[in-house]
Amino acid sequence: MCSSSQLSRVERVDWSTMTYKLVLLRHGQSAWNKTNQFTGWVDVPLTEQGVEEAKRGGQLLKEKNVLPDIVFTSLLRRAINTANIALDEADRLWIPVERSWHLNERHYGALQGKNKTEIRQEYGDEKFMIWRRSYATPPPAIDPNDEYAQNNDPRYAGEPVPETEALANVVERVTPYWESAIIPELKAGKTVLIAAHGNSLRAIVKMLDNLSEEEIAKVNIPTAIPLLYELDENFKPIKPRGEYLDPEAAAAGAAAVAAQGQK
Amino acid sequence: MCSSSQLSRVERVDWSTMTYKLVLLRHGQSAWNKTNQFTGWVDVPLTEQGVEEAKRGGQLLKEKNVLPDIVFTSLLRRAINTANIALDEADRLWIPVERSWHLNERHYGALQGKNKTEIRQEYGDEKFMIWRRSYATPPPAIDPNDEYAQNNDPRYAGEPVPETEALANVVERVTPYWESAIIPELKAGKTVLIAAHGNSLRAIVKMLDNLSEEEIAKVNIPTAIPLLYELDENFKPIKPRGEYLDPEAAAAGAAAVAAQGQK
Repeated sequence: MCSSSQLSRVERVDWSTMTYKLVLLRHGQSAWNKTNQFTGWVDVPLTEQGVEEAKRGGQLLKEKNVLPDIVFTSLLRRAINTANIALDEADRLWIPVERSWHLNERHYGALQGKNKTEIRQEYGDEKFMIWRRSYATPPPAIDPNDEYAQNNDPRYAGEPVPETEALANVVERVTPYWESAIIPELKAGKTVLIAAHGNSLRAIVKMLDNLSEEEIAKVNIPTAIPLLYELDENFKPIKPRGEYLDPEAAAAGAAAVAAQGQK
Repeated sequence: MCSSSQLSRVERVDWSTMTYKLVLLRHGQSAWNKTNQFTGWVDVPLTEQGVEEAKRGGQLLKEKNVLPDIVFTSLLRRAINTANIALDEADRLWIPVERSWHLNERHYGALQGKNKTEIRQEYGDEKFMIWRRSYATPPPAIDPNDEYAQNNDPRYAGEPVPETEALANVVERVTPYWESAIIPELKAGKTVLIAAHGNSLRAIVKMLDNLSEEEIAKVNIPTAIPLLYELDENFKPIKPRGEYLDPEAAAAGAAAVAAQGQK
């Protein structure tokens, strides 16, 4: 829902000064968000709630007249379906599509498939928080034969499949894709939508807003609420941290993400 | 459902001789298929039945191990969503996507939005059948200001929007796209899925099978049943008319299409 104060906050942006428009969209609730499991590169579907969240995301795009000209997605169905549902709602399902593993969620290594609360209880708060939010320390590597490893997945044929990743590794793989694939579309004047994941989007936010490792550790991105960035001629944010199209829902959603794994 | 005779029919294909693989998929039932209206370029959604048909289409792809490496769609949501639903079912939602108005349904001119049975009663059987199935005679042109014209639709900005089309016009616009966009992907060894419409797919079938105007008039393509073509080194069918992945359901579906507009 949108109160008048939220609307005025969005309307205060002076659109006439906008150089480039970028919209970040985290996927709606997935089956393993709901069951509180580490997901990473495991290709779980959206829940019914996730589908509804994606629809609401698309309605926000339409209501605020933020209409993507091209969409980039990860190779995971929770992000792809979120994009499809939102774009259908916004009457933009027909725009060009690019997909890449560079936008995939952080690979959670041996934690993939594990319950977050159980991991926290088994390994303690400190390790849990390091695995979730440290910048450069990845979880233990996954066994390539684990049922939740992706070594034989045809979508990554010929590509490197990580055995685990920290956020630093995600920044390393997102940055070259940003530069080679996404910036050219922005330069062409297109409004770009990126439909991806909590950590691949945090990697982009860290890069755009030039955040420190400590600052990005505190950033939580809510599900399926479009985050609009205006970018200047150097592809840097005109308004730091961008603008959620529903700021109130975004604040509540971010708090819920931060609370994951709590008892 | 699949009887053992259908399975054996598909299995009789000698896959080892296959050079190129092409799969044609007509969208599932749309809102205006259900209400018996001429649709053309009007962007109506799938019905619930259409969604179920698309799922079944995807299950057939998976069961028969016909796994697309790239998907081409029109710019219309009934084809795009059929592709998305089917590919999700087949675990191939992550493949690259190309969209083009070249694959859109035939533009039905002034008939767009009109009820097929009422048009038949108003104009008589002869005119009705000419408008539906003649090769080169289009229906009357649509008024550019008609509520069902597409002249101000942003997806066609900078592109020519027809005022009406006969199948001959669809062949004229599909053929160059086939040659410039689709053949290179086949040449690269990819299994290509084209998710499109009754008449844009009939244009492709006419071209592939080198059918006469009289022959293509009798071809009816059922909704959401994958039609597999093996193509030789000249991109000509090894088995003329291809192979539906569920031949029994395809025969029933084609008969239903042929009967449209009957009382």
